[in-house]
Amino acid sequence: MTDGDFGLLSPVSASPAVAALTGDRAVIAAILDVEASWAAVLEDAGLVPAGSAAVVAEAAHVDSYDAASVAERAQGGGNPVIPLLGDLRARVKSVDSAGIGAGKAVHTSLTSQDVLDSALMLLASRTVSALLLDVKGTTTALAALAEQHAETLCVGRSLTQHALPYTFGLRSAQWFQGVAAAASRLESLELPVQFGGAGGTLASGTKLTAGSASTPFTLADSLAAALGLAPAAAPWHTNRLAITALGDGLAALIDSFGKIAADLLFLSRPEVAELGEPLAAGRGVSSAMPQKQNPVLSVLIRSAALQAPGLASQLHLAAATFNDERPDGAWHSEWPALRQLLALALGAAGHLRELMEGLRVFPDAMRRNLELTGPLLLSEGVAAAVAPLLGEDGKQKLQAVVDETLKAPAAEQSRIYTKLLRETVPADKLSDAELEALLNPASYLGEAAQISRRIFAAYPDYAGFSSKGATRG
Amino acid sequence: MTDGDFGLLSPVSASPAVAALTGDRAVIAAILDVEASWAAVLEDAGLVPAGSAAVVAEAAHVDSYDAASVAERAQGGGNPVIPLLGDLRARVKSVDSAGIGAGKAVHTSLTSQDVLDSALMLLASRTVSALLLDVKGTTTALAALAEQHAETLCVGRSLTQHALPYTFGLRSAQWFQGVAAAASRLESLELPVQFGGAGGTLASGTKLTAGSASTPFTLADSLAAALGLAPAAAPWHTNRLAITALGDGLAALIDSFGKIAADLLFLSRPEVAELGEPLAAGRGVSSAMPQKQNPVLSVLIRSAALQAPGLASQLHLAAATFNDERPDGAWHSEWPALRQLLALALGAAGHLRELMEGLRVFPDAMRRNLELTGPLLLSEGVAAAVAPLLGEDGKQKLQAVVDETLKAPAAEQSRIYTKLLRETVPADKLSDAELEALLNPASYLGEAAQISRRIFAAYPDYAGFSSKGATRG
Amino acid sequence: MTDGDFGLLSPVSASPAVAALTGDRAVIAAILDVEASWAAVLEDAGLVPAGSAAVVAEAAHVDSYDAASVAERAQGGGNPVIPLLGDLRARVKSVDSAGIGAGKAVHTSLTSQDVLDSALMLLASRTVSALLLDVKGTTTALAALAEQHAETLCVGRSLTQHALPYTFGLRSAQWFQGVAAAASRLESLELPVQFGGAGGTLASGTKLTAGSASTPFTLADSLAAALGLAPAAAPWHTNRLAITALGDGLAALIDSFGKIAADLLFLSRPEVAELGEPLAAGRGVSSAMPQKQNPVLSVLIRSAALQAPGLASQLHLAAATFNDERPDGAWHSEWPALRQLLALALGAAGHLRELMEGLRVFPDAMRRNLELTGPLLLSEGVAAAVAPLLGEDGKQKLQAVVDETLKAPAAEQSRIYTKLLRETVPADKLSDAELEALLNPASYLGEAAQISRRIFAAYPDYAGFSSKGATRG
Amino acid sequence: MTDGDFGLLSPVSASPAVAALTGDRAVIAAILDVEASWAAVLEDAGLVPAGSAAVVAEAAHVDSYDAASVAERAQGGGNPVIPLLGDLRARVKSVDSAGIGAGKAVHTSLTSQDVLDSALMLLASRTVSALLLDVKGTTTALAALAEQHAETLCVGRSLTQHALPYTFGLRSAQWFQGVAAAASRLESLELPVQFGGAGGTLASGTKLTAGSASTPFTLADSLAAALGLAPAAAPWHTNRLAITALGDGLAALIDSFGKIAADLLFLSRPEVAELGEPLAAGRGVSSAMPQKQNPVLSVLIRSAALQAPGLASQLHLAAATFNDERPDGAWHSEWPALRQLLALALGAAGHLRELMEGLRVFPDAMRRNLELTGPLLLSEGVAAAVAPLLGEDGKQKLQAVVDETLKAPAAEQSRIYTKLLRETVPADKLSDAELEALLNPASYLGEAAQISRRIFAAYPDYAGFSSKGATRG
Repeated sequence: MTDGDFGLLSPVSASPAVAALTGDRAVIAAILDVEASWAAVLEDAGLVPAGSAAVVAEAAHVDSYDAASVAERAQGGGNPVIPLLGDLRARVKSVDSAGIGAGKAVHTSLTSQDVLDSALMLLASRTVSALLLDVKGTTTALAALAEQHAETLCVGRSLTQHALPYTFGLRSAQWFQGVAAAASRLESLELPVQFGGAGGTLASGTKLTAGSASTPFTLADSLAAALGLAPAAAPWHTNRLAITALGDGLAALIDSFGKIAADLLFLSRPEVAELGEPLAAGRGVSSAMPQKQNPVLSVLIRSAALQAPGLASQLHLAAATFNDERPDGAWHSEWPALRQLLALALGAAGHLRELMEGLRVFPDAMRRNLELTGPLLLSEGVAAAVAPLLGEDGKQKLQAVVDETLKAPAAEQSRIYTKLLRETVPADKLSDAELEALLNPASYLGEAAQISRRIFAAYPDYAGFSSKGATRG
Repeated sequence: MTDGDFGLLSPVSASPAVAALTGDRAVIAAILDVEASWAAVLEDAGLVPAGSAAVVAEAAHVDSYDAASVAERAQGGGNPVIPLLGDLRARVKSVDSAGIGAGKAVHTSLTSQDVLDSALMLLASRTVSALLLDVKGTTTALAALAEQHAETLCVGRSLTQHALPYTFGLRSAQWFQGVAAAASRLESLELPVQFGGAGGTLASGTKLTAGSASTPFTLADSLAAALGLAPAAAPWHTNRLAITALGDGLAALIDSFGKIAADLLFLSRPEVAELGEPLAAGRGVSSAMPQKQNPVLSVLIRSAALQAPGLASQLHLAAATFNDERPDGAWHSEWPALRQLLALALGAAGHLRELMEGLRVFPDAMRRNLELTGPLLLSEGVAAAVAPLLGEDGKQKLQAVVDETLKAPAAEQSRIYTKLLRETVPADKLSDAELEALLNPASYLGEAAQISRRIFAAYPDYAGFSSKGATRG
Repeated sequence: MTDGDFGLLSPVSASPAVAALTGDRAVIAAILDVEASWAAVLEDAGLVPAGSAAVVAEAAHVDSYDAASVAERAQGGGNPVIPLLGDLRARVKSVDSAGIGAGKAVHTSLTSQDVLDSALMLLASRTVSALLLDVKGTTTALAALAEQHAETLCVGRSLTQHALPYTFGLRSAQWFQGVAAAASRLESLELPVQFGGAGGTLASGTKLTAGSASTPFTLADSLAAALGLAPAAAPWHTNRLAITALGDGLAALIDSFGKIAADLLFLSRPEVAELGEPLAAGRGVSSAMPQKQNPVLSVLIRSAALQAPGLASQLHLAAATFNDERPDGAWHSEWPALRQLLALALGAAGHLRELMEGLRVFPDAMRRNLELTGPLLLSEGVAAAVAPLLGEDGKQKLQAVVDETLKAPAAEQSRIYTKLLRETVPADKLSDAELEALLNPASYLGEAAQISRRIFAAYPDYAGFSSKGATRG
Repeated sequence: MTDGDFGLLSPVSASPAVAALTGDRAVIAAILDVEASWAAVLEDAGLVPAGSAAVVAEAAHVDSYDAASVAERAQGGGNPVIPLLGDLRARVKSVDSAGIGAGKAVHTSLTSQDVLDSALMLLASRTVSALLLDVKGTTTALAALAEQHAETLCVGRSLTQHALPYTFGLRSAQWFQGVAAAASRLESLELPVQFGGAGGTLASGTKLTAGSASTPFTLADSLAAALGLAPAAAPWHTNRLAITALGDGLAALIDSFGKIAADLLFLSRPEVAELGEPLAAGRGVSSAMPQKQNPVLSVLIRSAALQAPGLASQLHLAAATFNDERPDGAWHSEWPALRQLLALALGAAGHLRELMEGLRVFPDAMRRNLELTGPLLLSEGVAAAVAPLLGEDGKQKLQAVVDETLKAPAAEQSRIYTKLLRETVPADKLSDAELEALLNPASYLGEAAQISRRIFAAYPDYAGFSSKGATRG
């Protein structure tokens, strides 16, 4: 067993899919991709010998490099690009058997920050693309749940207590809104290429392109295009908004996952039992208790949600202390935080999708819990409808009814509230039928359905095929 | 002296201007503004007695309320809206001498989260507007510095060491880029109104508007318009992206201030002396050392920059644990963090403007520091230009020259490097004049001027009148 | 209404008691106490005119100073000691009508960091003393609960699911352990005096004491004694362990509160109803929903628990970037974080005490929830006791029973599990009576009572009069 | 190349030594050690078949397990112990060819939290031991520097400006104090064993030991002794002070490293040049600039110092939200943070030792920088000594001299200050010789030497052989 971190202590992100996109191998691949693309850009611009790009591309295959060895040697210069470049140059030399001078295409006019910043943007771009697929699976599932449960009554809770009648459809729609809004924002972020040269003046690139049809800016744009990154107006060596915005975007997405997990973890408790995680072999087992079915997907998602805020903060701290033209530690402190955010987001997105696509919904339990509070839940609506019938101090009279009710044991409160209310309001002002209607939770759902429709309309790309149905409802 | 926090332990934000926009009085004013605007919206919609809005507006003057008393009573319900509403209702009753029933216009169909979320957005909107004025003062000053010092040579530093020739103009332009990019982002944020009612279903509002030409959604849009906030597609009670995005935006702006402060604090040290804070009576004094002139503006800005990341993170943590339809603590944890971010940003923005508008620049010191490393600074450029003249192992030969030079005492290195270089490169391949030109730092500035121009072109609103000049340069 | 922060947005700490110990007035009082004590120390050492200390003491009454004004003027030098000293010196001059030269006793040989560090330690010392009283009220209440409910059965939960039989007594004892362990640690912290002079060399103090019987070290020890602080072996201007350890200690205490609040917020939900916050007029009200009884004490405590980790982290960040002999921003970033930690801890401690002293406990609900899972809860114990009776594959057979059971609806599982178990184990190996005993949750409580006793024995000072009873039980 | 994290993006901790103590392999080894020790404890207590411990020990060799595979399978139950146990049990079965039933000794009466908490304490214990060796190497080097440079004059700086004369010996002593105080605290921490069983009641262990001479508590104590951990009065499943105290202790130690790195990074800048990192082949190289000698050790240490506060905070957040008898995500969020803190501390400790054992000190540069401010540095001392000679307004007269001086160019200030001072103070009150003595920085070092001695005396174990010399000096 090689020494390293394979995710043993981070089960939320310990999967081959996450490792493939965010592990050290992926970082090395991204660095090599930047160098190989740069060689191609230089060759296209006629600035290096013809044929160089092909040689570099061949030499730059990730399998030829050893991450653990590069990592260890990175301590010397404090950055992994330096030893990796040494290995790459040696390999280019050996591949360049024809001696065309392909070495001239490696790293020419770049500095290690150009390469690492661009490579991490590339890594981020790939990871975000993959994660948006899972996110859209999730939002599509949520839109379907919202449609299916548009009229499934449940209780809305605030500060842990029963507040008002609610629908599981609206809860799903609000979960959808959280995820879709954050994902849209992340999707719209520009991930820029970095090219500034050693001090950020493009000095070496200026010398290189002197007399050619290119400028350092055209080379940078070509590199951006080759890597699928956004072009940059200027080097951003010292202005880290691209990094913090990415971190903030990932954190905001994980926040939206965390909100759902927090709800799930409550709603799937045995005492509540409104929802259940999908049943799957090996999921939720315990080492000691044979009967346990742990909501492990939600637990893992929540573990990510508790970590993301601190990681995003780490990136801001780096940005806020980024001194000189390249800083004395702040840049280094970005790398692990950014990578961990990507891994957590990708890992959690996969779990959330599995969770939402297989969510077990128990409308009977929702109804049972709603009835725990019963007609008292309608007391806001009652106050609005009935107080005017009772004269000046109508509100006080109704509050007195509530206060009296609350003195009784919980199991008695529904009956007592209805009885006291009946006694308080003259029947000529409110008939029995009218009172009954007023105390029907389904009569006090406000705009639950319309709110859901407005939410799906705001994020058409995220509602999938179901959204059409949902907006039809 | 009343008990309270007047900024004694937070000098960066301890000013009347900051207190006026972010203190408890401002919070109460914002809450009252929301309630008064809501009364006006209801009256316009014909849902409350004519004349109510005027009564509420008169009653809602901030000077009639006592923040300390409201704060203390806020513990009962865990939120300041509840006791303040009690006071407001009493006052409306007393102002409503004509008995038109203006009380019906107070808080009708709202819940305290609607009011507090909207009020904090309003507070944020006012604070951000004020702070952008200071920011544009800063960026205008930076643009002028960039223009004025487009050719002022200095040294570019990376990992604390001298890297390449640089200009103070480009440094100013990069500072500008950091601030302008973050401010643009903040400026573009939508600060939405909140209206969802007690459980987020708009149930009470639906009853209220039943049979009228209005809907809860039209009322919400009117409220947004009245307050100058953005309309919201749906209640966002439980999805806190509006809050985290605001916090991230403020943190990113403060990051950009922190980057500048970090540079200033180094560049104004006695050993470096390239820059100086503006001299002003009472600024920078010490309690013990008569000769001290502390760069206190930069120190205060840095103190804010060290705090903002944690505060923004606090908002994400709240978002990530926002359970139920209203959470059991997370919402409460947002309030102080958001307010403190606003206060830090506003306080720091004022200091940075003062700093930049009065910055003292010492080009001679920049030149002196540049010459500490002297021609060695050009070794990257020398390698690129000269190595090809030396055959296969040109790079190694030049690295050997550098290594040999570095063995000498610092004061000798310039002379020795030039001498060794001369000895290494045959004069027929590189004349003395050519060598001298190669070792002239002004010859190796790359695209410094053009990068600055591109930066100002990207943020025309931030470069002010000076930007025109800057792009002329 | 004066501008300032009276706790409007931080209800957990918005009380006169908290403000009195941690507000700006308390900071000014602490600074003045340090200066007055120092004058007394100097007079005792014969280093200033006789009578000076009395004059300074008279001049140093906090009511003579205006926090808001000092705060605003603190921006000039970046620290509140400087303007306050100006005011103090003016006042000493005016009080010193006899002209004894009491001004010589003010701040002599001190630097502002000496004063502010010592003053904040003094503030902390006072706040921690007050807060430990509330903590001991809490732990005493918890010890009583543990004793009273030593045999009150409930369910133990892990990862949200029912795990094993538990007692409410053990839960109370574990809450106790959390609080008592953290409080003991906090109580044992040394809060040291600071005295180093302007640069940390005690240069001025050395000159001052030259030729006297005193040294700067003896003066520092006298100051510590006068203020009730710990003496310091050396100035700790730049080594902030005293600050971070205090912050960590406060955070750890708040963590222990947060753990309890997290449990309370779940256990007092309507669906669970095992516990209830004390009922008190005005507590837990809602602005919109008349029937709501929010667990507002727990909500406020949780809001503090979500904030403390970030604040403690702020202190470490300051310590980790504390450059030079006094830093360029890090020191300033300590002040608000430290004060806010103190205020949160004190505010939350009061709420927790109120909560625990009036906690409503519902053993019937505990029993009802326990029976939701019923005999399945004993499956770990069953496996241990029964598997050996079933031969080689006993464990697998029993897991099959559990798996089969879990396929049934929740309400049926108890019956089915018992039935399947009976069918699986031959009656000659396990009689009906033995099986029934095995499935009795009270038979599977392990060392619950003994663990509680060990916990109380470990913190005798925290268990109060009840602990004796508890260890008797 | 296997997928995983080999430290590529965290060069401060990317070394074989760090990986060996904190990598996934080390975690697995620690888990296996806990299980094997437990088997031995059970066998010693006669609770499992004789010979079991040897079988388990043989089966539990780390090389038989595959971290990546365990990590991936950990997602099912959300924790790595579960799949690893599966593998261990299979292996025990295969090793137990004699069929003694050694499987009964594996994990009996334990729950996965017992194993993982104990294993992480074991990992921490091993890592802390290793790291204290490096720390003591560092402190020994610092003590030697303090002794050697007890009289090496330099300037003390506050808020970036020159404050007072200082010595490099005292600076070294203060660095020592920071590290030694934090390390002592860390060294004194108890790292407790965990044993509570599935729900924290020791129910299974109670059944297991019934009728034997053992109790669950004696087994727990034996396990602690076997692993070299501290015994625990009670299970601490839900009270995480042991974890947060460890995290705080590691963060505090890294803070002390960060303080030194912050100073080094400034003091080794070309403009300052008072110190230099050790020269070593491959250290400090740049990918683009041949002449660069980056202070890479300090940069890496600083990168750790910027990360530790957030990681320690993560542990508090987990503790503060640790609900139920085992929480729904908080526990999982501890693992990566704790491991990363250990890795950063160990990595940084090694770099700091290398740095301090090879530090290059340049007293001439210290002197040169001291003379930049020259006699003005003595103005505090001048004020104290001379003001009384000038009558009532002596202080004002001297401040006027300083203010006048500061109007002159920096290079002139020394001369002007001396001249103005001479003109202000009558020669009969202060002779030329006395004035010269007063302006000699060596005359104003206060207790620099004595402070150093007191510091070393406070931490005798950390000063090594050099401390003796230091206290002689």
